[in-house]
Amino acid sequence: MIGMALLGCGRIGKVHAHNLARHPAVKLECVYDVMTCAAESTARDVGTRCARSVDEVMADPAIQAVLIATSTDTHVALIIAAAHAHKAVLCEKPIDLDLARAKRCWNDIASLQPTVMIGFNRRFDPSFRSLRERLGAGEIGVPELVIITSRDPAPPPVAYIKTSGGIFRDMTIHDFDMARYLLGDILELQAFGANLVDPAIGELGDIDTAMLVLRARSGALVHIDNSRRCVYGYDQRIEVFGSKGMLRAGNQHATTVESWNAASTRSRDLIERFFIERYAAAYAAEIDYFAACVRDRKTPSPSFADGISALELAEAAVQSLHSARTVQLS
Amino acid sequence: MIGMALLGCGRIGKVHAHNLARHPAVKLECVYDVMTCAAESTARDVGTRCARSVDEVMADPAIQAVLIATSTDTHVALIIAAAHAHKAVLCEKPIDLDLARAKRCWNDIASLQPTVMIGFNRRFDPSFRSLRERLGAGEIGVPELVIITSRDPAPPPVAYIKTSGGIFRDMTIHDFDMARYLLGDILELQAFGANLVDPAIGELGDIDTAMLVLRARSGALVHIDNSRRCVYGYDQRIEVFGSKGMLRAGNQHATTVESWNAASTRSRDLIERFFIERYAAAYAAEIDYFAACVRDRKTPSPSFADGISALELAEAAVQSLHSARTVQLS
Amino acid sequence: MIGMALLGCGRIGKVHAHNLARHPAVKLECVYDVMTCAAESTARDVGTRCARSVDEVMADPAIQAVLIATSTDTHVALIIAAAHAHKAVLCEKPIDLDLARAKRCWNDIASLQPTVMIGFNRRFDPSFRSLRERLGAGEIGVPELVIITSRDPAPPPVAYIKTSGGIFRDMTIHDFDMARYLLGDILELQAFGANLVDPAIGELGDIDTAMLVLRARSGALVHIDNSRRCVYGYDQRIEVFGSKGMLRAGNQHATTVESWNAASTRSRDLIERFFIERYAAAYAAEIDYFAACVRDRKTPSPSFADGISALELAEAAVQSLHSARTVQLS
Amino acid sequence: MIGMALLGCGRIGKVHAHNLARHPAVKLECVYDVMTCAAESTARDVGTRCARSVDEVMADPAIQAVLIATSTDTHVALIIAAAHAHKAVLCEKPIDLDLARAKRCWNDIASLQPTVMIGFNRRFDPSFRSLRERLGAGEIGVPELVIITSRDPAPPPVAYIKTSGGIFRDMTIHDFDMARYLLGDILELQAFGANLVDPAIGELGDIDTAMLVLRARSGALVHIDNSRRCVYGYDQRIEVFGSKGMLRAGNQHATTVESWNAASTRSRDLIERFFIERYAAAYAAEIDYFAACVRDRKTPSPSFADGISALELAEAAVQSLHSARTVQLS
Repeated sequence: MIGMALLGCGRIGKVHAHNLARHPAVKLECVYDVMTCAAESTARDVGTRCARSVDEVMADPAIQAVLIATSTDTHVALIIAAAHAHKAVLCEKPIDLDLARAKRCWNDIASLQPTVMIGFNRRFDPSFRSLRERLGAGEIGVPELVIITSRDPAPPPVAYIKTSGGIFRDMTIHDFDMARYLLGDILELQAFGANLVDPAIGELGDIDTAMLVLRARSGALVHIDNSRRCVYGYDQRIEVFGSKGMLRAGNQHATTVESWNAASTRSRDLIERFFIERYAAAYAAEIDYFAACVRDRKTPSPSFADGISALELAEAAVQSLHSARTVQLS
Repeated sequence: MIGMALLGCGRIGKVHAHNLARHPAVKLECVYDVMTCAAESTARDVGTRCARSVDEVMADPAIQAVLIATSTDTHVALIIAAAHAHKAVLCEKPIDLDLARAKRCWNDIASLQPTVMIGFNRRFDPSFRSLRERLGAGEIGVPELVIITSRDPAPPPVAYIKTSGGIFRDMTIHDFDMARYLLGDILELQAFGANLVDPAIGELGDIDTAMLVLRARSGALVHIDNSRRCVYGYDQRIEVFGSKGMLRAGNQHATTVESWNAASTRSRDLIERFFIERYAAAYAAEIDYFAACVRDRKTPSPSFADGISALELAEAAVQSLHSARTVQLS
Repeated sequence: MIGMALLGCGRIGKVHAHNLARHPAVKLECVYDVMTCAAESTARDVGTRCARSVDEVMADPAIQAVLIATSTDTHVALIIAAAHAHKAVLCEKPIDLDLARAKRCWNDIASLQPTVMIGFNRRFDPSFRSLRERLGAGEIGVPELVIITSRDPAPPPVAYIKTSGGIFRDMTIHDFDMARYLLGDILELQAFGANLVDPAIGELGDIDTAMLVLRARSGALVHIDNSRRCVYGYDQRIEVFGSKGMLRAGNQHATTVESWNAASTRSRDLIERFFIERYAAAYAAEIDYFAACVRDRKTPSPSFADGISALELAEAAVQSLHSARTVQLS
Repeated sequence: MIGMALLGCGRIGKVHAHNLARHPAVKLECVYDVMTCAAESTARDVGTRCARSVDEVMADPAIQAVLIATSTDTHVALIIAAAHAHKAVLCEKPIDLDLARAKRCWNDIASLQPTVMIGFNRRFDPSFRSLRERLGAGEIGVPELVIITSRDPAPPPVAYIKTSGGIFRDMTIHDFDMARYLLGDILELQAFGANLVDPAIGELGDIDTAMLVLRARSGALVHIDNSRRCVYGYDQRIEVFGSKGMLRAGNQHATTVESWNAASTRSRDLIERFFIERYAAAYAAEIDYFAACVRDRKTPSPSFADGISALELAEAAVQSLHSARTVQLS
């Protein structure tokens, strides 16, 4: 059994709390949140205790690993604290909104050889994972074109937008990681953006609609399209076109029911609206994998370096958007 | 070039007129209908002349083959006349509503060794044909279960129902032929019926909804379901389940457009509503095949005997419906 | 919290053990099996204790309800014991292979007004449930034709076939219940069977392939087809055709990945092969529902009477198969 | 009846010959090709005569309209000749490989107010047309993202590549027109290219794989992806995402047959491999529309100006590819 603590009991924190509490190989020793009531209610739900401080968690020898699901601005400090306490870390994305700060974080802890995994949950989605395995097995030859569709059901509150670091660091970052998961290193990219969904987002200097093209070192081209609003649900698809065929992974519907009537045929119900439902299996598989890495002392992937790479792509996208130029990744 | 005449310029006659007129290997010498105006308008549409009588057609040495698309009660007499005039025949289904009379027809002409094909158009549908070829090639091993779905968009006028011979001879006859096309001889069947669509049909002693089970000599079981009304179009499907898999042939949609919105996803437009559109390719392929048989002096299939077999199944279905017993085919 | 015991730790018993152990409103007090080692391993897996006898379970005041997942021949005795001990019962299907014995069981306990639910798990499948709700809401008008496809991946061992009561009592019984779930009372049925999958099954006097037609009191017709072997997985589908449209509920695939290559397009992976995976959500929802009924003292459905009705249909099917006649339900 | 002549009897010319010959409102007076044997065989196939020269065609008062399907370098001269002869023109795309020359062409003939239509056949595809109509009717609100997938089954011969003007003028030009057909004016674009399919194409300085992003005046973003090789057929899809939903138009399969077996499920056969089959309905509808415009003296669309706009986008794409910058359309 691996003793673990959960830091952060917000929306995604609660998902992790349930998965950690149910996991046969994990003992969820405690949860912590600066909002005591959030921590208490989560602890009650999953039958564990509340830690009173981060220091208490870091000092507890029963805890071998921490899951960091706090607000982004606290990630770096918590990663550093955990590394110094010799605890393994699973940290939610992004590492930080400031690329330089994120890089310094690693410099500070590299000598400790810490175990740090970044929570790019989509890598653990059974369909995306299966697609990648089949790609790796050569089923469609050499990948040449990748199309990543990623559209959120509804924009977050404007207050959140303000602190989000912008669409590329907040939302597209998952797609950047997916491009890297499928193809490896990215050499250059070009970003287009628009403010079509909510003028309030534009007033903050952010965009809510985007299209990007990336070129991988392998030669393959990648397209990403994003929208902050999608009326039919949380649209998450990947298409990979290769020299010998095409693989596509699509959306899940709550039921298999199909309706035919005098107005239309083959209608299905909506796709999952929320990332928690859409990626429920992925979040559980992510915990499985992390727990196995800690137990077997293996280096987990996506690593800290993967988190940095995704941030670099987000930074390049911002630069491309403002300069109307293709930006090279150094 | 094969000289042909069309007898009967009703709804299906007009479809054939166009296919015959366009066919590179056929010369449509003339059309005929007891309703002179129907014949004249058809002749004008496709650029041919009107024959003044059946006798004129049968006496014309330029005519090698006739297509009989007149009302069912005239089929037998026309087949006999054509056989005696040594003209090949493509006759619309059914041969006759009276099985005994249909059998006598063949006795009358058998010694002339006539070329007679019955117009079971569905055998020429590209999807059903492909399914049968793949079945024959062993793609799914031994066929064990066949499900034939056949639902008309809307019931015919009550006046037509009166002379139709009942649902089994009029509508299910296509499905009986399809079962034989896929599996060969049928040994026994059981019919269930109901009057759910229009009480006027029930008042005529007919049914508008049916389910049947057939057993083929091969051992396979067949299910047929019929309805005289289907709000989403003309539903025509076949599923064959075998020892090594399943093949299904489905409906065609007018376009490939798919709609996703806040109420439903993946919605397609309606399927073709009318048999003429649904089986347009089949009608054209049927003429191709018949013309090739005439040219190459080959025996066409579906043959007169196939027409008799389908009628026998319809007769057995009527008997089963009234006796609530499984009926053996002799 | 409802105290519960699990009787029977075989394949399906283990599924229930996990669902009971995880359920927030249930306390799994103990498990029992005549095979002590099966009970012990299950108890260990889910963290509960083993009861040493059925009597111990029935005498335990902490236990309010029992889940009976033992072999079919023990169901009646256990239901009677539980009813006398005033414990609610969730019993796996079928109640018994002998209809008369099953009916006597109820006579013996009716005066105790026991809470008994029969485990027709498919009623709790989210897709089938949604289909029924939409049907009930009138989405497709009056249901007229129901097609139930139910094909097992592979036949059970011959030893099991011997004690199974035959395909209709063992396998089709689920489809009979589904027909009743969707349409209510059934008035008559006709069964066709064949031995196409394994000669050993035929040698035992059983069949492995079946087609049935049922007529509901509502006037709707129902088709059921069964096979004991299906190479592409566990094929479980329902189609309901009504006066205003059609609803279909289909199979689930493990992933959404679709493959296109030079030989074929749109290929999906296999559907779930085992009932445990296929109906995982249904088994969990069944426990939810039963626990809520016990807590709220509501009469659960499917009831004991539903179990009897399904058995009556199985009996009628056997009779129809042997007589080649339509059998009326009294 | 409209008297028409066909200039050019190559691959696409023959398709047009058949459609013109069959058309009820058109009389195909003659065909012409510099290769006399091509003209003769086409004339024989469709039952018309060969013209001996372009001058003969232009001088013939029975000819009201010409269809120009000759090699691209002759288009401009033939359009000018036809305009001066007061004949309506349907000219295959592109007008010319040289944008300046194409513009001069119009200057030369504008005062004659000629009827000129450019053959962007995809606008007449029933599915794309239906998608656009539904878009125009507001079914999905305001369009925000358009994804155009356009992949050829196999690259043309290297000899053709040399004279093709490059992928953007030869292949992507259809997608540029489709973007304009759906959204109207395009303001800017960015092109990415790669040589992944055939090194011989790269040696000619061309690319065979491309991704582009365009921004429409409406604010919508457009993605186009192209490949010169697609093993599963001729992949032609459009997805339009809007404020109230999504519309997608996809590929057609030769049959509706679906295969399920022990290795995969739901497999369909390949999609049409050749543009002639894929767009058969579109080519016929294009002729219908052009004939109706000539008869009713209406200005056809896509117009000469649409042909110029598509060329301008191709030119901009070349420029963007070489500069790695977003290019504004003036």
